[in-house]
Amino acid sequence: MASQTPKFHLHTYFRSSCSGRLRIALALKQIPYTTTVTNLLKDEQLSSTYAAINPSASVPVLTRLDTDTSFSIGQSIAALEYLEEAFPGVHPLLPAPERALERAQVRTLVNIVACDIQPITNRRIILAVQQLGKDPAEWCRHFIERGFAAYEATLEKTAGQFSVGDEITLADVCLVPAVWAVERFSVDLGKFPRLKGVFEEMSGTEAVRKAHWRRQEDTPEEFKES
Amino acid sequence: MASQTPKFHLHTYFRSSCSGRLRIALALKQIPYTTTVTNLLKDEQLSSTYAAINPSASVPVLTRLDTDTSFSIGQSIAALEYLEEAFPGVHPLLPAPERALERAQVRTLVNIVACDIQPITNRRIILAVQQLGKDPAEWCRHFIERGFAAYEATLEKTAGQFSVGDEITLADVCLVPAVWAVERFSVDLGKFPRLKGVFEEMSGTEAVRKAHWRRQEDTPEEFKES
Repeated sequence: MASQTPKFHLHTYFRSSCSGRLRIALALKQIPYTTTVTNLLKDEQLSSTYAAINPSASVPVLTRLDTDTSFSIGQSIAALEYLEEAFPGVHPLLPAPERALERAQVRTLVNIVACDIQPITNRRIILAVQQLGKDPAEWCRHFIERGFAAYEATLEKTAGQFSVGDEITLADVCLVPAVWAVERFSVDLGKFPRLKGVFEEMSGTEAVRKAHWRRQEDTPEEFKES
Repeated sequence: MASQTPKFHLHTYFRSSCSGRLRIALALKQIPYTTTVTNLLKDEQLSSTYAAINPSASVPVLTRLDTDTSFSIGQSIAALEYLEEAFPGVHPLLPAPERALERAQVRTLVNIVACDIQPITNRRIILAVQQLGKDPAEWCRHFIERGFAAYEATLEKTAGQFSVGDEITLADVCLVPAVWAVERFSVDLGKFPRLKGVFEEMSGTEAVRKAHWRRQEDTPEEFKES
């Protein structure tokens, strides 16, 4: 399915947690890619040029350029599943096909982040909530803590060194940028010790170091870490 | 992977669109199941008994009872992917493994519904928005229309008789209950002709008829259709 020289491009923004998921997965699978920065603070994702690339008006977009017909995937979870199906051999991010229950556990944790946390704490919702006179930090903290509590309770059954067993999976790939986002909302990670442990384990890996929001080409100087 | 007599149980609520996804998929795959009604209007999903079944405090929960160790899946997309992996032979809901791009297209559409529409228009967000003095119908209409516009634009590249080509996929399974939810928010489906066409095509199937929110055991008399 995968050609020998895959060629990928990523529309990304340093602080987008969904972009972070793709950066981590691409790093783990050792897939090189070029980038276009889409600055959400400048609403670049709302332009008509961008709509032609991603009608969802969001980052990231993963584009594959080396196939006969190039194509783009504008939803991060669909892009992660694609990478896993196209490159199952390099650092698999789902348990083997015959381990159906563990695959479901991974996807359950992915969905807790991707459906129950990120969509209601992202920039467009923060702006909408702010317009209603609500402190967006309080709103985000509430839903992040509910989501993290569900993640933590699930880890009780599933966790080893990582979220599901002792191998890095898509769950960990989605968890890490969700925790990065939390720094802004005074969430007390100490309430979620298993989750915190997995995050710290992940943070020690080279892939997460490389994909970190503080180390991207578009990270402003004030946030930059080398 | 699947035993010969699969035994499933579903925690469901007639009006939950995520429950609707599972009811449609189970009907398409001709998998019988028993049910427990979890009444969201009575906050039954918030009880501690329920938290032990699903820490996400949401419906549906798909429980498999016939394996050596029974297990529950508390996130609907994870449950749909599980059903597809465990029963690929009966009415496949993803294109064949070698059709990686089409599988990504299906999952992109699934994510538009499951990440960009449902999470910000469900009951817990409606209640939170109402508390901020905002008309929740207006809030929901805004985000549903943005999500449907992205779905419609994607269909331009992917649709045949259904959302991706001429076979029913997980995209259609997720779309149908999203459209059911719209009836409450005066969304003009006429603006999304391809989406409307797919919805109508799906609505004519026996599986969708059976899974319809107006035909469940817990549908109140005032809403019931035979």
